[in-house]
Amino acid sequence: MAGPAFQALPGFRDFTPRECAIRNYLFETWRSTARRAGFVEYETPLVEDTGLYLKKSGGELSKQLFRFIDQGGRDVTLRPEVTASLARLAGEHQRQHAKPMKWFEIGPCFRYEKPQKGRGREFLQFNADILGEAGPAADAELVALAVETMLALGFLEGDFVVRISDRHAWTAFATDHGLDADRTAELLEVVDKLDRMDAIAADSRLKALGTGMDEVRAFIADPASASPACRSILADLAARGMDTFVQADLSIVRGLAYYTGVVFEVFDARHSMRAIAGGGRYDSLVATVTDGAVDLPAAGFAMGDHVIRNLIEETPHALMRLEVWLMRHTPACDVYVVVADELMRAEALSLVTRLRRAGVATDFALVHAKVPRQFQLAERTGARFALVVGSEFPQLKLKVLSSRAEESVDAAQAVEWITERVSQPDGPLIAG
Amino acid sequence: MAGPAFQALPGFRDFTPRECAIRNYLFETWRSTARRAGFVEYETPLVEDTGLYLKKSGGELSKQLFRFIDQGGRDVTLRPEVTASLARLAGEHQRQHAKPMKWFEIGPCFRYEKPQKGRGREFLQFNADILGEAGPAADAELVALAVETMLALGFLEGDFVVRISDRHAWTAFATDHGLDADRTAELLEVVDKLDRMDAIAADSRLKALGTGMDEVRAFIADPASASPACRSILADLAARGMDTFVQADLSIVRGLAYYTGVVFEVFDARHSMRAIAGGGRYDSLVATVTDGAVDLPAAGFAMGDHVIRNLIEETPHALMRLEVWLMRHTPACDVYVVVADELMRAEALSLVTRLRRAGVATDFALVHAKVPRQFQLAERTGARFALVVGSEFPQLKLKVLSSRAEESVDAAQAVEWITERVSQPDGPLIAG
Repeated sequence: MAGPAFQALPGFRDFTPRECAIRNYLFETWRSTARRAGFVEYETPLVEDTGLYLKKSGGELSKQLFRFIDQGGRDVTLRPEVTASLARLAGEHQRQHAKPMKWFEIGPCFRYEKPQKGRGREFLQFNADILGEAGPAADAELVALAVETMLALGFLEGDFVVRISDRHAWTAFATDHGLDADRTAELLEVVDKLDRMDAIAADSRLKALGTGMDEVRAFIADPASASPACRSILADLAARGMDTFVQADLSIVRGLAYYTGVVFEVFDARHSMRAIAGGGRYDSLVATVTDGAVDLPAAGFAMGDHVIRNLIEETPHALMRLEVWLMRHTPACDVYVVVADELMRAEALSLVTRLRRAGVATDFALVHAKVPRQFQLAERTGARFALVVGSEFPQLKLKVLSSRAEESVDAAQAVEWITERVSQPDGPLIAG
Repeated sequence: MAGPAFQALPGFRDFTPRECAIRNYLFETWRSTARRAGFVEYETPLVEDTGLYLKKSGGELSKQLFRFIDQGGRDVTLRPEVTASLARLAGEHQRQHAKPMKWFEIGPCFRYEKPQKGRGREFLQFNADILGEAGPAADAELVALAVETMLALGFLEGDFVVRISDRHAWTAFATDHGLDADRTAELLEVVDKLDRMDAIAADSRLKALGTGMDEVRAFIADPASASPACRSILADLAARGMDTFVQADLSIVRGLAYYTGVVFEVFDARHSMRAIAGGGRYDSLVATVTDGAVDLPAAGFAMGDHVIRNLIEETPHALMRLEVWLMRHTPACDVYVVVADELMRAEALSLVTRLRRAGVATDFALVHAKVPRQFQLAERTGARFALVVGSEFPQLKLKVLSSRAEESVDAAQAVEWITERVSQPDGPLIAG
């Protein structure tokens, strides 16, 4: 059975306890921010009928699928994104839910891309969507949630910006230039790549569409180009005190074919990274996915974990917030029970059980070890207290590990005593 | 683009908000119970090199893989279980961690099986493992965690039983009968299927191994057959006051080839369902997966979400606990801001933002609606309070939705007032 040792596949990640805690920090922040804004959580399968993705998104995404034939001969795909599944699920269940449906989701997605900074073949995504409301108030509510999420992660004014646009502005531009649907799609494609394309090539493609670089740049720069929806969103966000985080920017059109109106992206202020989050309105997707059975206007955004993590690491005040969270959440326990006398192991096991049931994270040495070694182990777990069970039982010694302060406590009162201590101002290290 | 509407694949589940809340109940209970016992969380990739599973488990599992060739020509598989990945990860990172490593994981697994009650093609699994400790104290700690998990889910004495066994007992039996390794494996296979096999067929297979049904049954029934490890585990659990939940039962051997010693399974008391959880010691797996580079004794167990959910639904006191949890966690918000005068919408948006930042789950009608309709929407969200913003602003009306009690509050004090109310004895409906 000899052979090379196994490794994680390229683009896939192992989450050691520290990495998993950082993941949990993102999950908890995403979840609590969404809940505070009245969004409720759902989840969809990680594997779906491939047609679901071919039908709706097209373009680049269809080349990046983890796609295969299952044992039953079905053409299936690991989900590259969640919106198609949400449209399917909403189509099926929308009758049971009051509108608008404000729904969020947190989970993994998969794309076969070249692994690099800010991009893996597996990533964790936060999705927030509002279904059943066609007006810009829903878009504004989503942008507000994106802003609050950034603030909850410790970012401040000047760290990030939300750029808001509307494909309708470009549809109007295209109509003015007499472009049909195909040529309008080409116009959007060039606008999407304007920053990344060679200027001369872009200009010549635009010329073929009856416009040009200068005219397109002037249109983007003109505040009058912003659509009524864009203006309404900016006014809504101003009322929330969020005007400093957002700006209209018609150069944003987003790649996916299914967007139908307002689109937006969150960037780091220096725009040194890929978009942190992006989304927009997709009013015809539910109808497409349900084959016309359900027609539900919808909008949403998604934030992946790769770029935001890079940005946290490069932003000292956001990193500090993460580090403080980790300090509180990575200790393996609050109390370490030291068995100073092996004859008292049964009493120690009983005490451990009572402490755990009272909600106190408790650990102990599974096998005999010298007392100093047990204290070493206690410190490695990050415990605040050591509770020493020895021959003086039922008298126990309690040590505060940081200060080595010591007191005596009776076994019968130990649980009550400890639960009180871990709920003191500096709080329990381990949340319920 | 016409075609049939899409559906979830057979054996895969959509989690609507209620289903997702039930999933979260399991996740939170698993997570908090594991943390209280000093276990730390990790996660492994959902897709792995297929060899990882073919090498270690063999047998039935290898026929149930979601296995395919990725775009890079790699033979890959959606993980059918987590232990092989844990062994890989532990082999790679163990030097950075004090022993024993007490690690837990919660996430999806995939097996191509016939979907039926208690079994899907995707399931959510709780894994808890202890690496770096070879003695029965680690096995006892794992069984204790399984018991505490059942208690935390609301089960009581008499609802479930943990059956503990040891393959070493059967190895000793096999040695007494002069069986070689292959014939010992066959003996274990027959014992594993004893309850499901035709008695005459089983007896004839056992006869061919130089024993028989009567002798095997007598061996299982004889308390003297229990291994020293089994006895040590039972004594440890008795010290924890858990003796009523566990029993030695040598008929348990577990299917997977990689178990090396103690094995155990959790069953509903009537044994009317598949095992709720199962695990055991797998002392050679880390060495196998790391090609001998790391040798680490290990034991663990896994609990899936299908069977436990069925058992909760059939056990009134466990179901009650779930329902109480859902009552506290499914309301979409604590406070619903009613916009009684559209001229005051900007003020309402500002108030909503302040409430959310103060940690209060807050929702409101995105677009104009008559006041009674907004109260209807408020009740549908499950909110406890409605805060009415009207022409008397900055005077607001606050209504307790359950009692319709009403009072006046100034907008400047509203946030403080509400945060105090939601932290009262009946607590906030929405946790952090």
